[in-house]
Amino acid sequence: MQTDAPPVIVLMTDFGISDTYVGQMKGVILSIAPAARIIDLTHAITPQNIVQGAFLLEKSADFFPEGSIFVSVVDPGVGTSRNAIALETERAIFLAPDNGLLTPILQYKAVKQCVTITDKRYLLPLLSSTFHGRDLFSPAAAHLASGVAIHELGRELDPAECQRIPMPRCHTRDHGDSWEGRIIFTDHFGNLVTSLEAELLDHSKQWLISAGEEQLPVSGTYGEVPDRHPLAYKGSFGMIEIAIRNGNAAETLGLRDGDTVRANSVKLNIGSCGRT
Amino acid sequence: MQTDAPPVIVLMTDFGISDTYVGQMKGVILSIAPAARIIDLTHAITPQNIVQGAFLLEKSADFFPEGSIFVSVVDPGVGTSRNAIALETERAIFLAPDNGLLTPILQYKAVKQCVTITDKRYLLPLLSSTFHGRDLFSPAAAHLASGVAIHELGRELDPAECQRIPMPRCHTRDHGDSWEGRIIFTDHFGNLVTSLEAELLDHSKQWLISAGEEQLPVSGTYGEVPDRHPLAYKGSFGMIEIAIRNGNAAETLGLRDGDTVRANSVKLNIGSCGRT
Amino acid sequence: MQTDAPPVIVLMTDFGISDTYVGQMKGVILSIAPAARIIDLTHAITPQNIVQGAFLLEKSADFFPEGSIFVSVVDPGVGTSRNAIALETERAIFLAPDNGLLTPILQYKAVKQCVTITDKRYLLPLLSSTFHGRDLFSPAAAHLASGVAIHELGRELDPAECQRIPMPRCHTRDHGDSWEGRIIFTDHFGNLVTSLEAELLDHSKQWLISAGEEQLPVSGTYGEVPDRHPLAYKGSFGMIEIAIRNGNAAETLGLRDGDTVRANSVKLNIGSCGRT
Repeated sequence: MQTDAPPVIVLMTDFGISDTYVGQMKGVILSIAPAARIIDLTHAITPQNIVQGAFLLEKSADFFPEGSIFVSVVDPGVGTSRNAIALETERAIFLAPDNGLLTPILQYKAVKQCVTITDKRYLLPLLSSTFHGRDLFSPAAAHLASGVAIHELGRELDPAECQRIPMPRCHTRDHGDSWEGRIIFTDHFGNLVTSLEAELLDHSKQWLISAGEEQLPVSGTYGEVPDRHPLAYKGSFGMIEIAIRNGNAAETLGLRDGDTVRANSVKLNIGSCGRT
Repeated sequence: MQTDAPPVIVLMTDFGISDTYVGQMKGVILSIAPAARIIDLTHAITPQNIVQGAFLLEKSADFFPEGSIFVSVVDPGVGTSRNAIALETERAIFLAPDNGLLTPILQYKAVKQCVTITDKRYLLPLLSSTFHGRDLFSPAAAHLASGVAIHELGRELDPAECQRIPMPRCHTRDHGDSWEGRIIFTDHFGNLVTSLEAELLDHSKQWLISAGEEQLPVSGTYGEVPDRHPLAYKGSFGMIEIAIRNGNAAETLGLRDGDTVRANSVKLNIGSCGRT
Repeated sequence: MQTDAPPVIVLMTDFGISDTYVGQMKGVILSIAPAARIIDLTHAITPQNIVQGAFLLEKSADFFPEGSIFVSVVDPGVGTSRNAIALETERAIFLAPDNGLLTPILQYKAVKQCVTITDKRYLLPLLSSTFHGRDLFSPAAAHLASGVAIHELGRELDPAECQRIPMPRCHTRDHGDSWEGRIIFTDHFGNLVTSLEAELLDHSKQWLISAGEEQLPVSGTYGEVPDRHPLAYKGSFGMIEIAIRNGNAAETLGLRDGDTVRANSVKLNIGSCGRT
């Protein structure tokens, strides 16, 4: 934890920002932890899309200060018997419903401690059955930011007991000369983020990325193709992305979330093209 | 007022966040009160919908720290002779155009002091006729946050003189066995928030909520109905809401703002069903 | 620069807020400059619309505290050889890709210093080719906020070398009795902001603003016309705007960005009306 810097609380939800939900969460946090810095990671997770939230949280976490407290709420089971959990890693603390939202954190980070969030001292007195973002996660995070130790929040939990969900991956064939994944999500620009991890593609080879009717070499940046032309490249999440330079790939190429994407090393690809 | 915590200024407007209007307001505030914390309650009030803003402001205010300063701007009469007012309650200060936006605050909170915002020392030197959010309310709020006393802003006003507007209510018949209200607004998830106050429904009875073609018992939480099924429940504003579990009630049920909603105690309802 | 107030970093991008891009930028900033205040000017610049971003940045900058650091990213050329620059004026520092986004700043403000942002000590270690907002501009701004001097960021640049783009202007004929401009953009309310600078219109004359089929006198405020009627007025950017009182001018009048707008002094206009 940082010593003199104010604690940072990062919010990620599927609440949108057209309602007062996120504003109310921030009010609760500042009521308990007046010095906390609150940052919005995003509130535009597709409603109830736990996989998308899980992906974006893990890909973003390390850009925040050490000691940050992440409140992540994509919570279709709110009010049911699902646990609310807090999980501490080397760098940060993550609060979330125990529904798989922390799957990649559990996979890729060393978990130091994991607890249920149950101690009523750290929740709002009136706990609604539909808005734990405001009534449970926000006050718990604010108490952590104010110096409460994570183990005070509730009962210790074996991380192995936490809910995990299948995350989009990519699969290989042909001894690493071919990878198959899919489009995970489309961003504000219409860029298509795929599950093909750029670092899995052997750097000594040339690759063609195919999706729909497109077959694209891996470019270094947008500027390598003419205006309004499609390209594939290593995006800022470390995944292969497909974009149209100064355009909207999702609209232009007719591709969307879930569609299959393949990476073929050029040699293999030429061969298979020759047979068709 | 809190002593060592930085003052909190809460913004609620119908300005949206696609323009630079809200950003400019924050710039003005920090220019005058560099230590102020600025929180967005929401900027997505339906343009010029004073009733919606009034409802959401009052339902949200108590989640913010004591001493918070609320700047609320839904202001179709900007630039006309309507007053700009500041109103102090036990917990907070509210700045708004005097157009009814503070109606529920005036109804439900004890008002300690009310003034017009007119003293030019606390406004921007160039007062536009169309953007008092930036030129009048933001600087006045920032000066309050910096220690200016509310009575310095202008002329004292009797709260009874302040503009009040009719707010959506629910009405009862049959000695409390039947209530009628309407849908106030639809949230980001497509959940329908009604004007039926949950606490008015006698807890010793069972209730059926009817809207359009739906007749729904009052559930405790989403998890009590199967996936994609509709339910009614006490929502996080304390009002009865209608939702589809993991779905969008507004789209699926074809209901919208203004539609009539009824709560009938089950006994009464069974009787009337028997007659049809 | 202010002495004890925390430094303010203002963000303006075309990234939208549905993704995690802006959140990641803020995480990077707070990791380097924990005390920095971060304010969103807007993230809804039309993707790749440098002209719009340039206009809104310059019109908004003076509402922010002296010493503010502006990070502006509308960057179709990210990853190409275009420079990233930092530019210091009397009041503020502006960081942006060197693609014309700072054109009006260069035109209207006295530039004290201008440098390329190239020193690797002030960038993220892994510089992506697609997201300099996070990997280059945010860390550079945060280092400036932490006390790094602007000339440490890179090589000094003659401001005359910086890229400038044509900005929407208005042109006069008839010795100032007629001005022609166009609609620059449409705001959240459907109000049409034009390139007609209100201060260019001789205050001793009466003016008619014409656009599409409308001919409108210049009103002082919305309240001067009946409900749902169109009006022209000096807007909060200092430009002539066209609106519908309590309505949406863009939708109702069928006007849009780029359409021609004229201001004619009344005398001239009466004459031309008489001939039709």
